This record gives sequence, structure tokens and C-alpha cells, in this order.
Amino acid sequence: MASRVEEFREFRSRMNARILELDNRSIKRFFGVDTLAYQAGALDARTKEMLGLVASIVLRCDDCVSYHILECKRAGVSDAELHEVFGIALVVGGSIVVPHLRRAVAFLDELNEQGLPPE
Amino acid sequence: MASRVEEFREFRSRMNARILELDNRSIKRFFGVDTLAYQAGALDARTKEMLGLVASIVLRCDDCVSYHILECKRAGVSDAELHEVFGIALVVGGSIVVPHLRRAVAFLDELNEQGLPPE
Amino acid sequence: MASRVEEFREFRSRMNARILELDNRSIKRFFGVDTLAYQAGALDARTKEMLGLVASIVLRCDDCVSYHILECKRAGVSDAELHEVFGIALVVGGSIVVPHLRRAVAFLDELNEQGLPPE
Amino acid sequence: MASRVEEFREFRSRMNARILELDNRSIKRFFGVDTLAYQAGALDARTKEMLGLVASIVLRCDDCVSYHILECKRAGVSDAELHEVFGIALVVGGSIVVPHLRRAVAFLDELNEQGLPPE
Amino acid sequence: MASRVEEFREFRSRMNARILELDNRSIKRFFGVDTLAYQAGALDARTKEMLGLVASIVLRCDDCVSYHILECKRAGVSDAELHEVFGIALVVGGSIVVPHLRRAVAFLDELNEQGLPPE
Amino acid sequence: MASRVEEFREFRSRMNARILELDNRSIKRFFGVDTLAYQAGALDARTKEMLGLVASIVLRCDDCVSYHILECKRAGVSDAELHEVFGIALVVGGSIVVPHLRRAVAFLDELNEQGLPPE
Repeated sequence: MASRVEEFREFRSRMNARILELDNRSIKRFFGVDTLAYQAGALDARTKEMLGLVASIVLRCDDCVSYHILECKRAGVSDAELHEVFGIALVVGGSIVVPHLRRAVAFLDELNEQGLPPE
Repeated sequence: MASRVEEFREFRSRMNARILELDNRSIKRFFGVDTLAYQAGALDARTKEMLGLVASIVLRCDDCVSYHILECKRAGVSDAELHEVFGIALVVGGSIVVPHLRRAVAFLDELNEQGLPPE
Repeated sequence: MASRVEEFREFRSRMNARILELDNRSIKRFFGVDTLAYQAGALDARTKEMLGLVASIVLRCDDCVSYHILECKRAGVSDAELHEVFGIALVVGGSIVVPHLRRAVAFLDELNEQGLPPE
Repeated sequence: MASRVEEFREFRSRMNARILELDNRSIKRFFGVDTLAYQAGALDARTKEMLGLVASIVLRCDDCVSYHILECKRAGVSDAELHEVFGIALVVGGSIVVPHLRRAVAFLDELNEQGLPPE
Repeated sequence: MASRVEEFREFRSRMNARILELDNRSIKRFFGVDTLAYQAGALDARTKEMLGLVASIVLRCDDCVSYHILECKRAGVSDAELHEVFGIALVVGGSIVVPHLRRAVAFLDELNEQGLPPE
Repeated sequence: MASRVEEFREFRSRMNARILELDNRSIKRFFGVDTLAYQAGALDARTKEMLGLVASIVLRCDDCVSYHILECKRAGVSDAELHEVFGIALVVGGSIVVPHLRRAVAFLDELNEQGLPPE
């Protein structure tokens, strides 16, 4: 049976492809800007992924949280560092963030059990 | 097996009926105002459904998005027009909107494959 | 088969335990403050649970809504009172709240059919 | 010089009148539902005003917060009770709520110095 | 004395220029996508400005609301049409939107008294 | 005349003091947790302030943004780094963030002209 990590990745990449097929220039270019924003510059990719993660948690988007946890791990962010990102997100965003944190920790646990999927 | 479109419609109409059974005047009247707001007036129903759709996407409510996609299709909004609504929603709301866009496109794809359900 | 109420309670308590295992002081202390805020003081626990509920609905967090419905019932809030909390939440938060209200009423119905779970 | 309380009340009542002049039925009826939702029913007006207040704080609307503080005071909610509403709002909504809390306390202080304005 | 319309336009254009001076490629490209999204395509510019307006109201951003009211007027949207956009925004977003509606109507009134500013 | 930086700092510290005078334990403890979350641990204070900043921008709280810009500068975050935080916030949060970015850049400009205020 597909794990939560696999299911998320399969739906995400299949539907991102569908979105780019829509032939809408604003959407396509937006996706380009999105990629660009996380590339290393004055800040390294690690820091940028943590910025994406904290923003995703306070805005309470589970899929965005899963994605950035995965990218943080690829970029070498340690679990102790991830937990501190969670801590700041919780304090800024309040208890309304807790259910998202539960799912974030469940996703991270699964990722740690399975190992990182191939890119 | 029930499709995503069917499942959504069944739960929605069953629970809306339950909500109206609650015998709470504010809620009942709110539902009346909600219906009224989308009726053709200075703006036609088509435009109003698109307004409801873009608002639902930026507020990131999947069920509201599904509902307004369905109503837009009934009102004759073309897929090319829907895509432009998606584009504006994405630019206004940012990448946090992307997971909702994935589900919106999946819903629209299913609707296009099955044809519109009866009203 | 596990009911919606059971599933919610099992995942919630299992993952809250995992979160507290993370050994992050901000998160742990936040959980302490969260508990403290709902204890009876100038306001009784009943009123505080209703405050938590209305806040959860307008912020549109289904799990938080389920949790506070359960706690409201334990604290003796009647269904008629819950419906008025729903009414205020709907008026303050608008139609974007409706799908969350559908799930809230479904959860409450299930709770009323099964009786309150043990604490 | 007009106080903050006076300025708020003058702009609010002048512009509410303008909005009702717009001759838009959805808006007019929405205002009716809004009034209805806070009338005493299964819950008394006091509790309902506190529900409106906590919802306004977590949604971070300063004018709504000012309005409900004023209505809470008229309905006999004590300052100690208001502070507990603030506490729950802060825990649910997180530190992003703090600047709104600063303005809420400043408004309440001004209200307490001046006495409640005539209705 | 500068009117509210003038003040808004002056700060907006001065600070947009400053933002583009920052020499950050993601930000610059984002501004390009933002312009692109509102250009006529399958939907005309009029409809797109109304979509931008309703999204801005439900997301409760006064400056965005002012901007899109101005652009709607330039694109030939009538006041009766604007009022229906307001009505949908109010129903979708709830009473928390009302203070933003008060400021939107005040801005529109000022615009109607002064006439549209030069582009 | 007081600058924007001064005005912000004066109101913030005066009202924070008032909030702590309220004698509400949840609020007091929340303030303690808030301080704790930004202390150096697995992540240094610099990174944590940037996390607080990006969260504040996407949640669109001007006062929180001003505060974290000030703390970022104190912690040695460069302007080029701040601009990349702005870029990620803009992409995640969308154009609705732009007005807050205008005020953020204006605040940063003022800070750079005046030098950092004493702690």
C-alpha cells in the first residue's frame, strides 16, 4: 500500500504537470518564480527551505508543510532544527496550528522510518 | 464506486439539510442571503459565480472551490475562462494556493470526463 | 470500524504525545499555557469552551472544532447553545465557514448517537 | 480633540448608513442577520458578545474588536472577564494577535477613563 | 491637503519603485506576473479587475481594495456592479469584512466626488 | 517629530507593559514562551529572527514585521538577506502581501537612515 509520503508525492507531481498543461502564462510564470525564490543567493538553500516551512505552517497548509519538510531534509536540516522551526510556528500561529503540527510530525516520522525518497 | 464529484454533492446536500433542520434563525437567514447574492442583477450569474470561485480559492476552501467550479460550468463559463480565474487566484493568494489548485484541476478534470451531474 | 469520533481522538492523543516527546521547551510550555487558558477563572469552563469553539470555527480548523464540541458537551453546553455558537461563527466568518459547519454538525450528530466517549 | 472611541464610533455609524444606502439587497439582509445573531436566545447577550469578541481578535480585525469590547461593557462583562477572553484569543491565535491585543487594551483603557458613551 | 486617494497613490507608486530597486529577481518577476494576470485574455480586463477586487475584500487588504476599485472604475465597471461585488464579498467573507467595506465605500465616494485621477 | 520607528517602539513597549499588568496568567506565560522561542538553540538567533519575519509577512501583520526587521538587523542579518526573506514571503503569500512589503521597505529605509535605536 502506498505510504503517506508516496501518495503525497504522486498526486503532487501528477497534478503539477496537469496545471502546467493548462497553457496559462500567469500560472506557468508563477511556477518559475516559485522555483527561483528558493535558490541559494544571499541566503543558502537550507535557510530558504526553513523559511518556506515556517510560512507554510503558520498559513496552515498541510501539503506545503509536507513538501518543505521533505526539501528541508534533502537540504540537510536536522530534526532538532526542524523542531525549532515547529516551535516558532506554534508560538506565532497559536494553538490553531497544533493539528497541522500533529500531521507534520507524523509525516516526518514516516520519512525518518522509510528514508528519503529518490528525487 | 462513488466519484469525487458524487461524494462531494451527496455530503453537501445531506448536511446542508441537517443544518437547516437546526432551527436557528440566523443560520437559516444566512443561507437565504447566500442564495440571493449570486442571483443575476447588475452582474450576470456567470460573473458572480466566477467571483465566488476566486474568493473561494484565495480563502483556500476546497469544498467551496468544487461547488463554484460546478456552478460556473452550469452557468456556461468555459475552461479557458476558469483557468484565468485560477491564474488571478494564484497571483493574489501566492504559492500557498497551489495545493488547492491541484485539487481544483483534478475536480474539473473529473467533471469534464463525467459530464455535468443533473441539478 | 472506528467511528469518526474515535479516529479523531486516537490520532490526536497519539500525536500530541509524540509532539511532547520532541523535547522542545517552547512547544512543551505552549501546551501548558493552552491547558491553563481554558481553566475556570473569572469565566467558567463552559463559557471558555464556547469561546474556543467559535474561534476554531472562524479560523476554519476542523480538528479544533471537533475537539471543542467534545469539550463543550462534557462541560454541559446544550445543543441549542452549540447551534447559537455556530450561528455567530457563520455570521462573523461568512459562507466560507459553511463546509466546516457541515462537518461540525456531522461530528455532533455522531457524538449524540454514540454518547460521549470516556475521558 | 476627538478621542479614539469617538472617532471610531462616528466613522462606523456614518459609513454603515452609507452602506445601507447602496440599495443592495444582499448587503441589507446580511446586516439584518448580523443583528439577529447577537440577540439573546439559548445564550444570553453577554455570552454572545464575548463570542463575537474572541472571533474578532483571532481574525485580527481592530474595528470589530473595538466594537465588541464596547458591546461587552454595555452587556455587563467585567474587565477580568474581558482579560480571559483576551487570554484565550492569544493562545488560539498566537503571537500574531499581540499587536491587536495592544490596541484592544488601549481602547479598553480609554473607555474606562471616559466612561461608556451614550448608545 | 492631500486626499485619501492621492495619498494612497503617491505612497504606492513611490514604494513600488523602491521595491523594484531592491534588485531581487523573485520580487521583480513576481511583479511581472502580477501585471500579466490582469491583462485581457479569455476574460476581459473588466471582469479580471472585479475578480481582483473580490479577492482583495475577502482577504481584507484595504490598499488592495482601493487599488482594484480604482482599476475597476477605469475599466468601466459601474457603481451598481461594484456594489454587487461588495455583496458577494460580504457573504463569502462574513461580518469581519464590514470594516473594510466601510473604508471601500468611503474610498469610492471620494473617487466619485473628485473624478478619476490621471493614469 | 517622532519618527515611525520611534512611534512604533514607544507604543509597543508601553502597551506590552499594560498587557503584563492585567494579571492574567495565560497571557503572562504566553509572553514567556514567545521570548523563549527565539533564543538560540539548534538554530541561531539570526535564523530564528528571519523565521519570525517571514511568518509575520505572510500573516500580514505590519507591527510584527517592523519588530522582526529591527531584531533581524540587531542580529546581523544583512539587507540582501532581508530582501530574500521578502522574496519568499511574497511568493508564498501572493500579491496580497505587497502593501505590507511597501511598509516593510519604508520601515527598513527609515531604520537605515537613522541607525539602529538603542536596545
